Amino acid sequence: MSTWVPGADGSLFDVDNLPYGVFSRPGEEPRVGVRIGDFVVDLAPIAAAEMLDVHHVFQERSLNPLMAEGRQVRESVRRWVTGLLTDETERDLVEPSLLPLADLTMHLPVEVADYVDFYASLDHATNVGRIFRPDGEALLPNWRHLPVGYHGRAGTVVPSGTPVVRPRGQRPGPEGPTYGASRRLDIEAELGFVVGVGSTIGTPVSYDAFADHVFGVVGLNDWSARDIQAWEYVPLGPFLGKSFATSISHWVTPVEALSAAWVDLPGQEPEPLPYLGPGATQGLDIDVEVALNGEVVSRPPYRSMYWSPAQMLAHLTVNGASLRTGDLYGSGTISGPEPDQRGSFLEIGWGADGTFLEDGDEVVLRYTAPGTGGGRIALGQVIGRVEPART
Amino acid sequence: MSTWVPGADGSLFDVDNLPYGVFSRPGEEPRVGVRIGDFVVDLAPIAAAEMLDVHHVFQERSLNPLMAEGRQVRESVRRWVTGLLTDETERDLVEPSLLPLADLTMHLPVEVADYVDFYASLDHATNVGRIFRPDGEALLPNWRHLPVGYHGRAGTVVPSGTPVVRPRGQRPGPEGPTYGASRRLDIEAELGFVVGVGSTIGTPVSYDAFADHVFGVVGLNDWSARDIQAWEYVPLGPFLGKSFATSISHWVTPVEALSAAWVDLPGQEPEPLPYLGPGATQGLDIDVEVALNGEVVSRPPYRSMYWSPAQMLAHLTVNGASLRTGDLYGSGTISGPEPDQRGSFLEIGWGADGTFLEDGDEVVLRYTAPGTGGGRIALGQVIGRVEPART
Repeated sequence: MSTWVPGADGSLFDVDNLPYGVFSRPGEEPRVGVRIGDFVVDLAPIAAAEMLDVHHVFQERSLNPLMAEGRQVRESVRRWVTGLLTDETERDLVEPSLLPLADLTMHLPVEVADYVDFYASLDHATNVGRIFRPDGEALLPNWRHLPVGYHGRAGTVVPSGTPVVRPRGQRPGPEGPTYGASRRLDIEAELGFVVGVGSTIGTPVSYDAFADHVFGVVGLNDWSARDIQAWEYVPLGPFLGKSFATSISHWVTPVEALSAAWVDLPGQEPEPLPYLGPGATQGLDIDVEVALNGEVVSRPPYRSMYWSPAQMLAHLTVNGASLRTGDLYGSGTISGPEPDQRGSFLEIGWGADGTFLEDGDEVVLRYTAPGTGGGRIALGQVIGRVEPART
Repeated sequence: MSTWVPGADGSLFDVDNLPYGVFSRPGEEPRVGVRIGDFVVDLAPIAAAEMLDVHHVFQERSLNPLMAEGRQVRESVRRWVTGLLTDETERDLVEPSLLPLADLTMHLPVEVADYVDFYASLDHATNVGRIFRPDGEALLPNWRHLPVGYHGRAGTVVPSGTPVVRPRGQRPGPEGPTYGASRRLDIEAELGFVVGVGSTIGTPVSYDAFADHVFGVVGLNDWSARDIQAWEYVPLGPFLGKSFATSISHWVTPVEALSAAWVDLPGQEPEPLPYLGPGATQGLDIDVEVALNGEVVSRPPYRSMYWSPAQMLAHLTVNGASLRTGDLYGSGTISGPEPDQRGSFLEIGWGADGTFLEDGDEVVLRYTAPGTGGGRIALGQVIGRVEPART
C-alpha cells in the first residue's frame, strides 16, 4: 500500500508499520499519536471530527485506555488509520494534524502495571552460565522446561532518551562488600511485550489467546549493574542490580504490524508441557542492532530465541496470576549463537573488566522486522546515555 | 485519651489506633474511612462540612491521594480525627457518619504501585537455609550485609477475605517436572510498609526519611507454593510460586499510631555499611498470631527481626530507584527463635509433607502492638481461605 504522506513510502515507518506513541507539543497535554514517516498523526481531533466512538482514548496521556479496548478495536483503529493515510481524499482532513516528529516531545507510551523479565535466549543463558559457573553445567535443570522469569520494578521503566544515572550499591570484594558506584554497568538488548487486555485472578491465559491480550511490542534495554547483581542475587534473584532503570522505546508496534514476522522457533527439546503449547511455537524474525557511541557492536537475531512470546504469556499466568492493562514483559537478553550476536557487554567482553559502560557512553538499540508489504519496518529505538553516579 | 464512641475505649481499636481503610455501603462508591471500635467514621461528609482543604482525598476509592499529601497532612488529619472522637461537643457532627463496621464492605485500601518483599528475619532465613541446604551454610554470604529482597506482583495483591485459589504449575519430580495443582501451599506471616510520598529517580532515600515517605503498616500474607518455587527459583528468584496472591489487611495503621512500639533491633553483626544507618536500628515490638482453622499455631514476634523497616527502605532506593505513592514492601516471613514462633508452615513442619494447606483451610493473621496510651492496639488482620485449583 502507498501513502500520500511525503517521504513515508519505502521508509521504515511506512503504512505497514503505524506504531502508537504519546507525544506533546509545547504547552499542551500529552496525547496519543501514530507515526508515519517522519510525522506523527494527532489522532484525537480527527477521531472527534469523524465521531469515532472511542475518540476519547486518543486524548489520554498513555496508551492504556486504547489498549484496554481490546483486539477488535485495535484492529478497527488500524484499518481506520490506514484508510486515512492511503486515501488521497482524506488528505485535507488529516494534513492539519500531521505533525513533524522533530517538533514534538515523546513520552513513556504506557503506564506500566507489572513488569516481568524473562530469560528466554538459550545462547544468552548458556553464555552467562559459562561465565559465572565455569566448572558447572551452563544451563540449570529447569531452563529447558519453563521460561525462567522474575518481576522487575515497574516504577523505573523510563522512555528512550532518559539519561541513566550510574547506580550505587554494595559491590563484592575480597574483604567483604564495599559501597560505591557500579563498575560493571551493562545493557541487555531485549524486546518487550505490552498487555492491553487484562484477565481474572485464578484463571490462566492460554498461549492461543496471545493476540487477544498483547497489544504490541516495544524495544527494551534492561540496564544491569553486574557487580551489584552478582553479590545480591542469591537466593531471591536480581533486585537493585536492575531496578534503577529499564528503558523502553517511544513507539509500541501493534501485533498486526508484525504479522509477516512470525517464524518457527529453532526447536525445543524436551517438548514443553502441554500448557506451554507444543503446537504454538512461533517466534519473531526481528533483527536487533546494538550501537555504542555510534558504532554497531552487535547484531542479535530475535529469531534465535528459545521460548516464544505466547509461551511466556501462558507461563506467566499458569498459576492464576491475573494480567492488567499496561503489564509489560521482557524477553530477556537477545543473544544469537555467534560472537557478534550477543546482547550484553558481559557476553561481548566475556566477563572481562574494561568492557562495561563508562560515564558519557551512549547506547542505541534498533530493531527491524519484515513488514506485511514485503519491505521492512522499524520498531522504536531505545537510546540511553550514562550519567555519573550522584554523590 | 477517651472517646465518646460506644465500646471503643479499652478495645484494640481505641483512639490511640485510628487506622485508615476503604469501605462502601450497598450501592455507593468506595471511599475513605477511619476505624474506631466496631465503627467506621465516614470522613468525606465531615471533612466537607468542616471545609478541610484536603476533603477531596476522603472521597477517593483508595488511600493513595491521602497518602500522597505527605507527613504533615497525615499528622494534621490524625489530630483532627482524634479531636472529633474525643471531644463530646463534636458528637452531633460525627454521629450521623459513624457507621457500624458490620454493615460495610471493605476493599483493598491501597492502589499498589510496586511490591517488594524482603527476607529480614534471621531465624526464618536460617530455618529455610537448613531445610533446603542441610549440608551447607544456613545463611548465604550476603545475608548479614544487606536486606535481601526481590520484586513481587503488585497486580495480585488482594484484600483480606479474598479466597485464594490453589495455583497450578510445574512441580519438580524424579522424572522431570509435572503439571498440576501445588501440593505444598504455604503462608508467610509478614508486615507490609506502605509508601505515601514518592521520590526522584537517581536519588536515594535516606534511612532517616522513613516517616516522611512511609504512611503506615499493613498485615500481609505472602502465600507461597513451595513445590513450584523450589523448581523455578534458580537463578532469578521466586516468580509463580508467589505471584498468584498476596493478601493484605483492610486497615493501614499510620506510623504515628506505632510511636510507642519502636524498640532496638536484637543486634547486627557485622555493623552495616553507613547507608544502612548503623545508628538507625529501631525495630517494632509487634506480636503476631497465626491461626489455622481457628486454632493458634504460632506467635511470631516482630521485634526479633534482623533488619529494620528504615534499613529496608534505604536499601530499596540506594541504587537510585524511585518510590511512588502506593509502593508496598513486605518484611519477609516473621519467625522468632523458638519453635512456636515460626511464620510459615514450611518451618512449623520443618519441610515435611503433610504440613501444608488443604483446600478449605482458613488462615488468619493477627497483629497487636503497644499503643501510645499504655494499652494495646491491633493492626488489621489478614484472612484467607484456600479454594481448590481450577481445572
